[in-house]
Parts: sequence; C-alpha cells; structure tokens
Amino acid sequence: MTEEPLLRHEKDERGVVTLTLDRPQAFNSLSEAMIAALQASLERIAEDTTARVVVIAAAGRAFCAGHDLKEMRAEPSLGYYERLFAACARMMLTIQKLPVPVVARVHGIATAAGCQLVAMCDLAVASRDAKFAVSGVNLGLFCSTPSVALARNLPRKAAFEMLVTGEFIGADEACAKGLVNRVAAPEALDAEVERLVAAIVAKPQVAIAAGKALFYRQVETGIAAAYEDAGRTMACNMMDPAALEGVQAFIDKRKPSWALGER
Amino acid sequence: MTEEPLLRHEKDERGVVTLTLDRPQAFNSLSEAMIAALQASLERIAEDTTARVVVIAAAGRAFCAGHDLKEMRAEPSLGYYERLFAACARMMLTIQKLPVPVVARVHGIATAAGCQLVAMCDLAVASRDAKFAVSGVNLGLFCSTPSVALARNLPRKAAFEMLVTGEFIGADEACAKGLVNRVAAPEALDAEVERLVAAIVAKPQVAIAAGKALFYRQVETGIAAAYEDAGRTMACNMMDPAALEGVQAFIDKRKPSWALGER
Amino acid sequence: MTEEPLLRHEKDERGVVTLTLDRPQAFNSLSEAMIAALQASLERIAEDTTARVVVIAAAGRAFCAGHDLKEMRAEPSLGYYERLFAACARMMLTIQKLPVPVVARVHGIATAAGCQLVAMCDLAVASRDAKFAVSGVNLGLFCSTPSVALARNLPRKAAFEMLVTGEFIGADEACAKGLVNRVAAPEALDAEVERLVAAIVAKPQVAIAAGKALFYRQVETGIAAAYEDAGRTMACNMMDPAALEGVQAFIDKRKPSWALGER
Repeated sequence: MTEEPLLRHEKDERGVVTLTLDRPQAFNSLSEAMIAALQASLERIAEDTTARVVVIAAAGRAFCAGHDLKEMRAEPSLGYYERLFAACARMMLTIQKLPVPVVARVHGIATAAGCQLVAMCDLAVASRDAKFAVSGVNLGLFCSTPSVALARNLPRKAAFEMLVTGEFIGADEACAKGLVNRVAAPEALDAEVERLVAAIVAKPQVAIAAGKALFYRQVETGIAAAYEDAGRTMACNMMDPAALEGVQAFIDKRKPSWALGER
Repeated sequence: MTEEPLLRHEKDERGVVTLTLDRPQAFNSLSEAMIAALQASLERIAEDTTARVVVIAAAGRAFCAGHDLKEMRAEPSLGYYERLFAACARMMLTIQKLPVPVVARVHGIATAAGCQLVAMCDLAVASRDAKFAVSGVNLGLFCSTPSVALARNLPRKAAFEMLVTGEFIGADEACAKGLVNRVAAPEALDAEVERLVAAIVAKPQVAIAAGKALFYRQVETGIAAAYEDAGRTMACNMMDPAALEGVQAFIDKRKPSWALGER
Repeated sequence: MTEEPLLRHEKDERGVVTLTLDRPQAFNSLSEAMIAALQASLERIAEDTTARVVVIAAAGRAFCAGHDLKEMRAEPSLGYYERLFAACARMMLTIQKLPVPVVARVHGIATAAGCQLVAMCDLAVASRDAKFAVSGVNLGLFCSTPSVALARNLPRKAAFEMLVTGEFIGADEACAKGLVNRVAAPEALDAEVERLVAAIVAKPQVAIAAGKALFYRQVETGIAAAYEDAGRTMACNMMDPAALEGVQAFIDKRKPSWALGER
C-alpha cells in the first residue's frame, strides 16, 4: 500500500489538470488499478469547479499499450471480462461526460485500449514519432471496445482496416484520418498541447461545459432534434453573465472583463 | 419601408436563383430581418417549379459574420433567444428540405452562424482567401447550433477543436476536412461555382429533388431502413418519364431529349 | 443453360475466396442474374466454415458499371423496379453480414451500383487508373441506393457532390475521401490486395467474425449502447481458446499456436 501511484494528478494555478499514466515498465497498460485510478481522478475533476481542462499524458517510452494482458489472462472467466470491459468503457465515457475538455498528449505507441483512450479524448496532439494500432486482433482478440471510439473518429473503411489488420499507422496518417488533431516534433509536443490548453482556459467555463455536453448529445440524434436541443442550450448560454459581458465587450470593441477561475 | 433589401433574390433563365446577402456594412450578419428574408426567399423557391439550383452569395468583404450581436444584446431574455435560435435553425433546415441543391459561394470570413450556413448548404465553393471559424466561444457563447451542422460535415475532433478554440481555418483546410467541396482562386470563384451549377441544371429536376430528399432522410436511419427507403425512391424515380427517356437514350447511344425547365 | 457462368467462384487452400465478375462485354453490369449469382455465392461463403476472406474482382476493362440498363428498361413497372432494387440491396447487405471480411479489388470504372459495391465492401484496394462515379443522375436516375453506401464512407458534402454531378473521381481522390483504403500501380494491385488478405488470414476466424459483426452493429447505436454491446462481444471473444492462447503466447513472448483453418 506504499506503492508509487500509478497515475499522477497535478493541477496548475489555471486549473489545468495533468493526469500522467505512470507505469512505464508496463507501457502504462490499463490494469484494473489504472482504470480505477483514472476513474477516481476523472470523478474528482468533475467535482472540482476550478478545473478547466485535462491533459492525459504518459511517462516512459509509450503512451499506453492497452489492457494489462498478464492480469487479464490470470483467471479467465466471462463474468470477470464483462466487468473489466464495462469498467474500462465507463471510464472512457466519463471522459466524454466531463464538463471540461480532455486533451491526449501522445508519444510512443498507443495500442488497443491505449488507442481507444486517444480516440475518446475530445482533442489529441501527437508527437511525430507516435504510432497507433488496435492490435488485439494479432492475439485473437478483436478490439471491439476500441472500435466504438475509432468508428466515431475515422472514416469507416480506415477504422475497419486498422481493426482487422492490427497494423500501426504513424502520427501524420492518424492526423489525416481524424484520430488526432495535430502532430508536432517531439521537442515541440508540449508547446503544441499548451497552445490548445491556453485557447481553452481563455474562454468562460460555462460556455465550454454547456457546449461540450451539447456536442456529444446532438451527434446521437436526428438533425431536427439536435437543433432543438442546441437552440435551447445556446439560449441558456447567452443568458449567462459571461456571455452577456463577452458580447457587450465585442460591441464596445474592448476585452471582456471575466473572472475565468470558477465554473 | 423604403430601405434597401437585405437580401437580393435573382433568377436567371435557367432557373438558377442567386440569393445575395447584402448588408455588407454589418458583414452580412444574420439579424432577425435577414433570417426572415432568407426564410421567405427559400419558401418562395420551394414553391417555384422553375427553380433548379440556389447559390447563396454575399456582398462586400465578408460572407457572413453570424448573428447580429448588437441586436441580440439589446434586450436579453431567455424566451427571445430561444425564438431567435429556433427561427435561425428553421431557416437552416429549410435549405436542407429545399427540393433543389443549394451551393454556398464563400469569400472573406464565414464565422459562427455564417460558418453554419456554409455547412448547411448541400455544396460549398470557397475562395482561397476565405476563412472559417465558430468563434462564439471567444465571447463566452459556444456555437452550439453551428455545432449541429459542423459535426455532420467534419471529422469529430476537427469540429470540436474549432468549437472550443474559436480559431480560424483557411479554405484549403476547410476543403480537406469536408466543410467545403472546392477551393478556387478569388478570380476563378464564380467559374468554379458555375461548374457545379451547370452540372446540376443539366439533370432532370425530379431526379435531383427525389435524390436530395432521400439523401438526408437515409443518413438519419439504420442501413437496412435506409436501403428500403432508397429502393422505393429509386423505383419511383425510374418510372419518371425523364429517367425512362434518359436510360433509353443511353441504350440508343444518343443524347436524352429532355424538357429540363419544369419540376 | 450451358452459358458461361457470370461469376467465377474460386477458393484457395487458405480459404481465400475470389469472386470474379465475368461479364466483361457488359462491363460486368449487375443484371438480375449477376445479382442472384452474387447472392448465391455470398450465401455459400456464409455457410463455408473454411472461408476466411472474400475478394471481389472483375474481368475485362471495367470493375462494374452498375445495373444492367437494357434489361432494366425492357419492361418498366414500379413493382419490378422495387423488387430489383430490393434484391440488389439485399445482396449488398449480405456482404456486410458475412462473417468474413470482403475486399474489393477495383480497376477501370466503378459506376452507380458498381461504385456502391465498392463502398459496401469492408475494404477496397484500387488501381491508380480506377475511376468512380455515381452517374445515374446523368440519365435522370439519381443513385439513391448507392447514396446509402456512399454517405457511410465519404464526408457528406463529397458524397452529395458525386451524386448530383455524376462526375468521376480518380483513385487517389477516392482514397483521400475514404471510399477505398489503398491505391496501387496497376501492376502492383494484386500484391496490395494480397497484403490485406494475408494480414486477415493470419488472424483467428472467431475474432474477425465477432469483431466484424459488432463493428456494423455498434455504428448504428448511441455510444453507451455501443459500449455495452462491444464489452459483451469482447468478453466472449476473450473466452475463445484462440484468444486465450494468443494472449498467453504474447505473455510468453512466443508465437501463438493456432489452427487457423476452421471457424
């Protein structure tokens, strides 16, 4: 119980939370303990009204190699696997439900559920040397849960090819296909992540929180229902003091006077 | 009541209707009056059986800067904003429901609901100097209604990045991401729009009208239901005299003899 | 009744089934007999537990020019067309339901339902000289059934443009837009198809079959339901002897000992 933590949870004065997967000797694989640690950290962020954005990063040579296969193989049972994949999916969906944007900072390999983690983040920045694969099929285990995330990020045939071949794609291809937003030289990776982070923390929290929630709700409905939901969401957003001040400042050709700290 | 019209509505002898946003001093922003004028023109086109295609263009330096913020800020109330966004969404959906294709001719900036307008058109051609952003978030107002249109045009992470950063993307990036079909040098913009227009007016109306309606219906259903709907639509289309003549002309290796003017 | 078969059905010792459209004088058009032959072959493959992957190829200069227009024009009736398009859609959906991946090997032209056939395959490799169009609209017959497949492969505006203009796009553009996975020089087309085929036959059947079925189920549901389905699917997959052996072999740093022949 005096082990090093698997996951480092750090927050700066702006409310930028960095979660660092820190089990480099196991390529930061998503053991049950790692999934639980991520779940706990994400729930803590959901409750923290001063949090503004989350960066998921990783220590060592890899971003994340997916599930912990040794742990997974130890005591096979259908019930155990169902609980494991449900816990992992719950954690992945918590990212999407979080009121603040989540940015993946990817270097090295991101495979299987590690690739899924990248896909489930709202935004992703990859080092040019990063590589992505859903490689479970190489072991006879099709990456079914990762396919849920992949199919919502990449064109259909591109996602299917990765899933049945298990082959790696590089960072530039991942960017062209929609899996990551930006690619940076390894030494410029932090600066590129910071560019996105700085853009986000400069906006009022309430707008980002309402907009993110609406974004993922509306993609699951027909367009007419989506517009009804979006119209109500935007009307509420407009009544918020931050938006009223922001729009007034725009009209007055001045900078908005916002207290950006709290949600 | 003797004001200049906000929106010019012109139709040529082929049935090509050009709607020109003409409030350049306000960057063609979508005031309540502009939304109402667009709604009225679109409804007129829906009733006009000689209309074949619509081009939405804009006067002055910008395509469209989104909602009229000054008007919007004047008397804040939740009910007012709900009605405003509902009226705007209704107008946007009227574009999709129109029996003729709608092409956006974009130059300068297309921001917020102006960017949404581009996304809601069936097709879009951009001048190389055009720029696109959903910049409401910069004022604390997340572009929720534009996100409905964006998420149906761009890969998910690319749409989300535009929405939370509020940053501009250029025409070539917009094209690569799916927001516009084609990019042209500024002096070649009209010729590129005309290429699409000419291709459309050369086809029988009934085929285009039935096909466009089916296209947007089927994307909202599962694939089996989509095929049922599409099969029925295509069978009806095939029984139309224009299709029977078109297919016969193909077999006879001659040009079809069509009266293309009326729907 | 002593005619040459329209469709060649060949299987190699690995379980790779090649279906070759062999009606080159008619550009391999999908006559009723061709649709029936494809349906029969696909059903035979679905029952054949030694089949591992299907390649759909074509003889002559074209891949497939869509429906057989001469046959279709002979005796017009709404009921006939409804049955024809329903039979064609059923065949297309059988590809998606097949427990093994289907790869289109495309050279020459793929037009209308021929382009749809490419889109409905799980994977597609195109010769650099291949060209794609949904050209029915040129004859007054909007490619409504192909639009179902196209809209699930390409960005929305790109699909719509092809459908209303009827114009060809080349292989590289088809690849960039998601209609095909890979483009090869004509002389390297078979090698590129073989690369995908070899990657697939090296994986256990049960993983591929369960994964493919899940993939197409989950894209039609909301993300939460998708994850529930995917989690159960993956738990079942993990209990399969091939996956248990594959994961154990990975842990032991050895090659898995699989009997890959049977499903």
